Amino acid sequence: MKFPSLPLRSLATHYLRPLSNPLQTNVASFTTRTTLCAVSARGENVLNLLPQYLLDAGGVEFYDAKTSPDGCLQVSIAENHCVAPFIVDKVNDVQRNSVFTPDMIYYQNTYGMKGCRESMAGFMSTIMDTPSKVDPEQLVIGAGCNAVLENLFMALCDPGDEILLPSPYYATFSFDLGCRAGLKLRETEREWKVDEKEGDALTRASTYYPQIEDLESAYQRGEKRPKVLLLTNPHNPLGICMPKEVLDGLVEWAVGKGMHVVSDEIYAGSIHGEGFYSLAGEATRNPNVHVVYALSKDLGASGLRVGALLSSNEDVLAPVRKLNDLCQVSSTTQQLVEGMLGDKEWIAGFLKTNMGLVRRRYERVVEVCKEAGIDYLECDGGLFLWLDLRPWLGGGEGEKDLYLRLIREHGLLMTPGESMDMREDGFFRLVFTAVGNAEFEIVLERLRGLRGMKKGEGEGR
Amino acid sequence: MKFPSLPLRSLATHYLRPLSNPLQTNVASFTTRTTLCAVSARGENVLNLLPQYLLDAGGVEFYDAKTSPDGCLQVSIAENHCVAPFIVDKVNDVQRNSVFTPDMIYYQNTYGMKGCRESMAGFMSTIMDTPSKVDPEQLVIGAGCNAVLENLFMALCDPGDEILLPSPYYATFSFDLGCRAGLKLRETEREWKVDEKEGDALTRASTYYPQIEDLESAYQRGEKRPKVLLLTNPHNPLGICMPKEVLDGLVEWAVGKGMHVVSDEIYAGSIHGEGFYSLAGEATRNPNVHVVYALSKDLGASGLRVGALLSSNEDVLAPVRKLNDLCQVSSTTQQLVEGMLGDKEWIAGFLKTNMGLVRRRYERVVEVCKEAGIDYLECDGGLFLWLDLRPWLGGGEGEKDLYLRLIREHGLLMTPGESMDMREDGFFRLVFTAVGNAEFEIVLERLRGLRGMKKGEGEGR
Repeated sequence: MKFPSLPLRSLATHYLRPLSNPLQTNVASFTTRTTLCAVSARGENVLNLLPQYLLDAGGVEFYDAKTSPDGCLQVSIAENHCVAPFIVDKVNDVQRNSVFTPDMIYYQNTYGMKGCRESMAGFMSTIMDTPSKVDPEQLVIGAGCNAVLENLFMALCDPGDEILLPSPYYATFSFDLGCRAGLKLRETEREWKVDEKEGDALTRASTYYPQIEDLESAYQRGEKRPKVLLLTNPHNPLGICMPKEVLDGLVEWAVGKGMHVVSDEIYAGSIHGEGFYSLAGEATRNPNVHVVYALSKDLGASGLRVGALLSSNEDVLAPVRKLNDLCQVSSTTQQLVEGMLGDKEWIAGFLKTNMGLVRRRYERVVEVCKEAGIDYLECDGGLFLWLDLRPWLGGGEGEKDLYLRLIREHGLLMTPGESMDMREDGFFRLVFTAVGNAEFEIVLERLRGLRGMKKGEGEGR
Repeated sequence: MKFPSLPLRSLATHYLRPLSNPLQTNVASFTTRTTLCAVSARGENVLNLLPQYLLDAGGVEFYDAKTSPDGCLQVSIAENHCVAPFIVDKVNDVQRNSVFTPDMIYYQNTYGMKGCRESMAGFMSTIMDTPSKVDPEQLVIGAGCNAVLENLFMALCDPGDEILLPSPYYATFSFDLGCRAGLKLRETEREWKVDEKEGDALTRASTYYPQIEDLESAYQRGEKRPKVLLLTNPHNPLGICMPKEVLDGLVEWAVGKGMHVVSDEIYAGSIHGEGFYSLAGEATRNPNVHVVYALSKDLGASGLRVGALLSSNEDVLAPVRKLNDLCQVSSTTQQLVEGMLGDKEWIAGFLKTNMGLVRRRYERVVEVCKEAGIDYLECDGGLFLWLDLRPWLGGGEGEKDLYLRLIREHGLLMTPGESMDMREDGFFRLVFTAVGNAEFEIVLERLRGLRGMKKGEGEGR
């Protein structure tokens, strides 16, 4: 057990540590413990929102080079282990040269210190290639992308409102937008044409671009009208980047319906291919378009909890600035961010290094997928690959069976498509940067081990 | 303008910067701006929750030794400027000797890193004088006391639920518990016996201890039953500390009603008198009692955004640990906190110094109040003094008039009682640590200037 990726451990050993089975906790159980006052329904619901697939993997033994070489490798958490050494050195360098000044001890502007916002604005302008530099006054710096997203959506929507988003989607949106903000996700009902085996159908990213007719149909569904169209770009979990004309069409359609557009671009600095187009430029001038970002992926620095909202809409910024009171970043961390992102020479070198490392990992995992006969979606950005493992589903086997079999027999814990609202069983997200270099070789070896194990090939396990 | 206390500036110049009058912003205004999609009612409501008294003071010119020596002194924000130099030195010392290690880059336990929780547990055990050391597993570290309070209350209460609390109370609870958690405050309707001039009636802290009969009456009022009794101890804004037997009685009564008790003890390390008794010991064994704390007051470090929940109730801790995902403290700041609070020798010296400085300020402000003929409430803790300025109210004058007159003519911005739900006009909270030493002398001089200015004394202004 040497994984620094803690969410799974947290889930298994911490959040739920003292409960035998949190999903069975309900009000009724208090009747036998008369000294306990009642807690809230929403508090209990929090535990129901924990990702089921991680709970399913609760008892799994993880890989450790010495103590558990056959243990499972965790490639479901979108962390970037390639860049860690560079970031660690830079943090130490900046911290050594930072002075905590008297003004940093007290309350700061709730939406972020000026220097931090300025550096972030410069950095976002670079990776999102905005026509002119982002105005730091259009930014709100909060404790992580999830915190920023939640406050943005509180400013845009009221409890019970719905958010339109194309499926599959980043699984944690259900928690981030549902838990405290009380919002519901309405996914597109599109039939993904992933089973059209016309040549390289699966590798054509355009197959996955959201179609207006599908969005329109989802929009019309039900009694309420969704308030926001939520996009991820680069797409999570697919890794694809949509061209400008597709994004422009989506914005035009959504705003025409009176919907805001929120673009989560947390992988904007992790592009290994071509064709990423950011909506940041649009957000600086269109009050209905908003971009969220964080340092957790491109800098691999999820432990710093630094996220940012970019919006030009003062009716949105004003409440978010105040809401952000409840999830501010400490002044010392803001100073650190200012120092890191403000060092433009270092940033330029770092981004180049990062993109090179991510690209190399992508190329290698794709190569091995080809060797193993695994279909995948060619993509341009992000830290993951979308795998079509349907041929590995046994007769009558559901995705969960395959998910557990991949963990137990092949030592790979990937994110199952079902957790991201993928309609068809058998798709998985593999995070190819979730482990260090030595473990990555083992991941590749284990992927190779899937070769010839397809069901119906007469070679079954 | 050299005040590092930013909330007022933030209010006046940042949250609301681009809006001419945020309180007039409503959906109707969008009809003239057809390109703007609608925002949420709760987002607009955020601006209505901003403290009115700070908005009232929007155009005030603040004190600056060189450029504005007659400007107003801000003594309404509960910051501790006495300790700044000690904290600044220590932060720099710890940061210089800290190494950012590779494991700190990634996601951490959502409820706080082990080392940080251990140091916090030791520190809280000291200042709260718990019978045995607090178990770090009973702590959740979040981004400030407000963040921790909000998540605790989300775990305890559902939207629309009510919280019972004795008035006057810390003004910002309305925002912290109302804004996103959707809770309502139900204050006691007690008639404070502050006008009983029987000798030293006003100076008897016991006059202000919540009485069970008042709580019972407030509890029975209306259709719903409140879910939580919320206490501040030392009391904010009164500064009084309740004896063990009073607190025990309150807990017994509340829990007997099926209510949780939450004790906000953010001033636990700022005791300048005798008799502080913490509910922390109770919280470690009673699942219905919960204590919240933060470093913003006792360490004067509001800019670090570090708060803590202490609870022994796993049905509360489990959801709060997960909810805290949305307001975590960065790993570097947690390491800093571990280093500061873990240095027990330094902490012991610091606490002694802090208490001495706070006590000296208290003694001096009390002395000047006596000279100026200002009645005040004798107290034992906190950074403020509760002043009875009713004799300064002119005929037919409301508290707001006096509040503005104190700002404009006497250069003192204090928290008006009305903002803390004090029923009778004319009471103010003066934060005697809100300014540095030089400014403190000016505060005292300006208080002295109130002498002989009482209305009805024939000496009116």
